[in-house]
Amino acid sequence: MGGPVQEALDALELVDHHCHGVVTADLTREGFEELITEGAAWPGISSFDSPVGVAIRRHCAPLLDLPRHAPPDQYLARRAELGHNEVHRRLLTASGTGTFCVDTGYAPDRLTTPPELAETAGATAYEVVRLEGVAETVAAKGVEPDDYGDAFQAAALEAVQRPGVVAVKSVAAYRTGFDLDPARPSDAEVTEAARHWLTRGGRLDDPVLVRHLLWTAVDLGLPLQLHTGFGDNDIRLHRVDPTHLTDWLHLTTGTIPVLLLHCWPYQRQAAYLAAVFEHVYLDVGLTLHYVGPARARAVLEEALEITPFRKLLYSSDAYGVAEFYRLGALAFRRGLAGLLQDRVDADELSLSDALRIAEWAGAHNARRVYRFSGPS
Amino acid sequence: MGGPVQEALDALELVDHHCHGVVTADLTREGFEELITEGAAWPGISSFDSPVGVAIRRHCAPLLDLPRHAPPDQYLARRAELGHNEVHRRLLTASGTGTFCVDTGYAPDRLTTPPELAETAGATAYEVVRLEGVAETVAAKGVEPDDYGDAFQAAALEAVQRPGVVAVKSVAAYRTGFDLDPARPSDAEVTEAARHWLTRGGRLDDPVLVRHLLWTAVDLGLPLQLHTGFGDNDIRLHRVDPTHLTDWLHLTTGTIPVLLLHCWPYQRQAAYLAAVFEHVYLDVGLTLHYVGPARARAVLEEALEITPFRKLLYSSDAYGVAEFYRLGALAFRRGLAGLLQDRVDADELSLSDALRIAEWAGAHNARRVYRFSGPS
Amino acid sequence: MGGPVQEALDALELVDHHCHGVVTADLTREGFEELITEGAAWPGISSFDSPVGVAIRRHCAPLLDLPRHAPPDQYLARRAELGHNEVHRRLLTASGTGTFCVDTGYAPDRLTTPPELAETAGATAYEVVRLEGVAETVAAKGVEPDDYGDAFQAAALEAVQRPGVVAVKSVAAYRTGFDLDPARPSDAEVTEAARHWLTRGGRLDDPVLVRHLLWTAVDLGLPLQLHTGFGDNDIRLHRVDPTHLTDWLHLTTGTIPVLLLHCWPYQRQAAYLAAVFEHVYLDVGLTLHYVGPARARAVLEEALEITPFRKLLYSSDAYGVAEFYRLGALAFRRGLAGLLQDRVDADELSLSDALRIAEWAGAHNARRVYRFSGPS
Repeated sequence: MGGPVQEALDALELVDHHCHGVVTADLTREGFEELITEGAAWPGISSFDSPVGVAIRRHCAPLLDLPRHAPPDQYLARRAELGHNEVHRRLLTASGTGTFCVDTGYAPDRLTTPPELAETAGATAYEVVRLEGVAETVAAKGVEPDDYGDAFQAAALEAVQRPGVVAVKSVAAYRTGFDLDPARPSDAEVTEAARHWLTRGGRLDDPVLVRHLLWTAVDLGLPLQLHTGFGDNDIRLHRVDPTHLTDWLHLTTGTIPVLLLHCWPYQRQAAYLAAVFEHVYLDVGLTLHYVGPARARAVLEEALEITPFRKLLYSSDAYGVAEFYRLGALAFRRGLAGLLQDRVDADELSLSDALRIAEWAGAHNARRVYRFSGPS
Repeated sequence: MGGPVQEALDALELVDHHCHGVVTADLTREGFEELITEGAAWPGISSFDSPVGVAIRRHCAPLLDLPRHAPPDQYLARRAELGHNEVHRRLLTASGTGTFCVDTGYAPDRLTTPPELAETAGATAYEVVRLEGVAETVAAKGVEPDDYGDAFQAAALEAVQRPGVVAVKSVAAYRTGFDLDPARPSDAEVTEAARHWLTRGGRLDDPVLVRHLLWTAVDLGLPLQLHTGFGDNDIRLHRVDPTHLTDWLHLTTGTIPVLLLHCWPYQRQAAYLAAVFEHVYLDVGLTLHYVGPARARAVLEEALEITPFRKLLYSSDAYGVAEFYRLGALAFRRGLAGLLQDRVDADELSLSDALRIAEWAGAHNARRVYRFSGPS
Repeated sequence: MGGPVQEALDALELVDHHCHGVVTADLTREGFEELITEGAAWPGISSFDSPVGVAIRRHCAPLLDLPRHAPPDQYLARRAELGHNEVHRRLLTASGTGTFCVDTGYAPDRLTTPPELAETAGATAYEVVRLEGVAETVAAKGVEPDDYGDAFQAAALEAVQRPGVVAVKSVAAYRTGFDLDPARPSDAEVTEAARHWLTRGGRLDDPVLVRHLLWTAVDLGLPLQLHTGFGDNDIRLHRVDPTHLTDWLHLTTGTIPVLLLHCWPYQRQAAYLAAVFEHVYLDVGLTLHYVGPARARAVLEEALEITPFRKLLYSSDAYGVAEFYRLGALAFRRGLAGLLQDRVDADELSLSDALRIAEWAGAHNARRVYRFSGPS
């Protein structure tokens, strides 16, 4: 550890281009254990007995005035003692993040709003609109199948015109996977699909309507964040390898930036797309805290094998617990600094190039894509 | 090498939760070379010229009183001189395995029975029933299509009620791959499929009957071992990515433990399933000896990236030659100790946590899944 | 770095079993940036800001009398000053390649012929015939659908009987991917498919005709090079995982050598095929220079995890710029030497075995497959 690249990354205010909020409540042990896994709180298997659990005890405990590797009970007792507001303040501040882009479309729990998150962290927050949420709200309000296409587009446009919105997001990965017809569906196809969906109800998972949603994102003109790879068990992992998007990426070349989120274990596949399509970018958010600082570098090494240095972004994809902002940022800084510094030390890379790459990945690439203007 | 984690793992009696037996005969050079590859003994290409061949000469030769890296001729001459019984005794004992779970359903060669293996190794052995073998025996004995479903279930139940049986296994990977309809087939579907299969003959590779077999495993209530990933050229590797099982895993949640065997090169995909499904476990058996101690750690690092520490098990998947028990155990102990000790040294993990993880993966996780009771 | 394995590999005349030629012209900055990416020269993102760009500045600049890590402007100015002939001479000579097998079937730019390349490098060059090019020439000359099959076979036979031809190549990966019916198509199927293709025109991408092409390669009896994995955005990456070829490899067992090129990110899948099919070989060409010396070892480690040592070959897959010959050779020598020497130092491998493996992979395996006889 250490060295000038680490110092530069430690001092850099990160742009976390994709995250959620933190739960605005004190958590029970079960509640906390539910939030620190993509699985669930299983009887007889503590969520702490995992790479992320070990990383929390190592890297978050000291911020709560506990010894490194404090046991879970002690950690949770201290967390309760401090109260969630103070815990959030300490961990979010420690993440050293200057800007958050907050996906506000998934909140089974009561989460901080972007302004609340920004205030706690002493940072700026922008909003990312989840398009599936917009579509489902349109359906919930009641709409005729003939009108669904226009109504969704109008609602999406309205949603992204609110102040502070910088991007849209799709969780098509969870709904259909990416093995879709890449073409924009016709109006008649959308009406027909809407007829079935609106009758049937439930979440938006019709392939035609998911395609319509992706093409609506293109029309909106904002950067599109796409969940790819790792997630909870609602994913069919082999269907969210981002290379299934290749035909769609051909059709959308020259339009909006497409940001592949998470990617693991397909970070090499995502890197390939970022290397051959001008409008494609990637991050390894979510992965960073789940694998922890012990493996973040290995994942970043693969993500960067062929990736143009303008194409890697940082995100935490933190949800629910403030620990994930801290861990994501730490794993990113350590992992990236480690790999760059070693290349500098081996004379494979100049120090000035290494510093530039670090700054690009940690902040400038996101600024270039999102063109933030003024506080949200 | 060295350090307290290595010491602890060296001293730990492993549970090898999936292996076969050793050939009870002295082997010719060709016979030996056939057994140390997933390919075949090819003219002009010695099986010794491979990672596993190098590992045998390095780590098994000294146990036969030869210098490290002894050439193949010398190795095989000494092996013949000692005789297979003595070779087996030395290599099996050196594996430090206390418990074996032996898949008895694949034996193109005359292999040791579980009690013979146990006696040679000074260990305890349990049995794993290969369900495809049970089905094929039912067919071979003669059964009407209408009766096949019940007859197979009855035979499977009888097989697992024999003393010492702790699990069942399926090689669906070899027969159909995992891209199957996940639903339990109806009785009518089973009868119809049995009609075709019983007429046609051959091994069980009908997709409906393979699904019926997997659901029969659920009914039996014992842990189910599933071959995934790496094997011989009878595999279509892309069809045995275990994430193709996701829908079936949803349907079987809350039933039997499912143990994903081998997994390579899909160890990350298997780890994902183990992280998001309570009943899923994994190992990297077979892989460990084929990649050898030089790469076992790298594979384990990927297998453990997000895996809950209660979900990784040890197996050798040794078949035929006693060398594979020795190499699997050595590669596992070295690989796991190396990665854990380095994390301890980097203060990413406490020593007590590292020792606990080592013990869990090497023995306790298997004990928890299989609930061994008394000697077999 | 350093040690006896590195010294041996540095001294070894490599056989580069798959490459193209270099552009016989001085290049503009845009022209150069187009050639050093599998993407394109994008406005605002320099191709130099990538792993391969960094590697060029580090490892090629000194050969042009510039300091290591010279900036792109300085690099290109010096390149222009020296002129392409001198640049090619310096970089090709520095690659230390004794034999090139040159795919002459892809030349959107004016490239060196094999003899020109050989002369510049002070080496020997053989030719590899790209079968899609032969088929498209047959079509361009005009042929009746009924005659297409025979005409293509005759043209292919004529092409490979020219002096210096040692292999054929297919880019089926770019045309259909590998998820093809493995069987040899009937004459009637070929005629019918040719009828459509010859009417429609365009490049050969009909699945029946691609299958016919692959089977024609089998009939020709020469080694067949197959592009797999990484390439430009004309690839659908998930469809060029080489394990999709498994059924075809079963049908072609005992016929021609099949050489899987590039492979990344499917190097483990390719290694599996090389381990279980006698006639399958692999390289990680193209990948080596794109990932650069900083990651070539990691890719080679995966490629060699289970690969028999007789099955790995070296190729640069260099196209267009002489830098890629230099970088490919350097990345291969450093990567392979590093991994072998570390195994020797850890006493996992004897030095004599390491030297043998290095020589096999760098030259002898290719000699064994291609049976070069006399200069081209």
